[in-house]
Amino acid sequence: MHAEQLATRQAEVLGANAEFYRAFREGDFEGMQRLWATATEVACLHPGSPPLIGRRAVLESFRGILQAASGWRMTCRSARAFVTAPDAAFVTCLEANGDHPAHLAATNLFVREGESWVMVHHQAGPLSRAVPADASPLAN
Amino acid sequence: MHAEQLATRQAEVLGANAEFYRAFREGDFEGMQRLWATATEVACLHPGSPPLIGRRAVLESFRGILQAASGWRMTCRSARAFVTAPDAAFVTCLEANGDHPAHLAATNLFVREGESWVMVHHQAGPLSRAVPADASPLAN
Repeated sequence: MHAEQLATRQAEVLGANAEFYRAFREGDFEGMQRLWATATEVACLHPGSPPLIGRRAVLESFRGILQAASGWRMTCRSARAFVTAPDAAFVTCLEANGDHPAHLAATNLFVREGESWVMVHHQAGPLSRAVPADASPLAN
Repeated sequence: MHAEQLATRQAEVLGANAEFYRAFREGDFEGMQRLWATATEVACLHPGSPPLIGRRAVLESFRGILQAASGWRMTCRSARAFVTAPDAAFVTCLEANGDHPAHLAATNLFVREGESWVMVHHQAGPLSRAVPADASPLAN
């Protein structure tokens, strides 16, 4: 893949990743539905929980989470996109409540369906030590 | 993708996933090195830690883990492969110490380099409730 193509895809994927967190933050279940793949089987690993498999199960889980999460403001930091194939990519990032130190680390997987990057998987898990907003995001 | 192609790729990816856990269990750092991609940038989210980015950082982390983990026997259960592109796939699974209830849930990402499926990302995080070996693996 040419460097320019790669940079374009990384920017597109980071845009889709930002849309995931916007929908999350705003409790926008319609937006969340649009963001998940329809032609590829999807999965999700919420913090502490075994895998959810399939679009129905994953979206039902997000319906409940979006309804319950009105008290906190989901923000994403230090997002980094990795393009693994012309139409497949993943993002690593940290998750926080507003300006608080990040308390979760996440992986988001995307594929391109038509002209859109859509999600096929999300895993988030707790950080042993919360990462302040102004800290270096990487362990290395 | 034809159903037969898909089934072949799923089996190949589950084989690569099993090789990851074999190398982990046996403390086989050479095997672990062979298993990680060389032509694609890689990342890793160990339980509790911020993202590690790049082959050097990821493999150094595994060198330390493999040296320290001699006291427990890493096993993988309920592995399920999702093929997201002809040369890209991910696996969800549970991780346990031998026959003990699984205490971690994991995502492993693979791409095909030449004839081999190799890893580009791993995230593992704690389960709120450990999952016994004979339990249904899915939350749904």
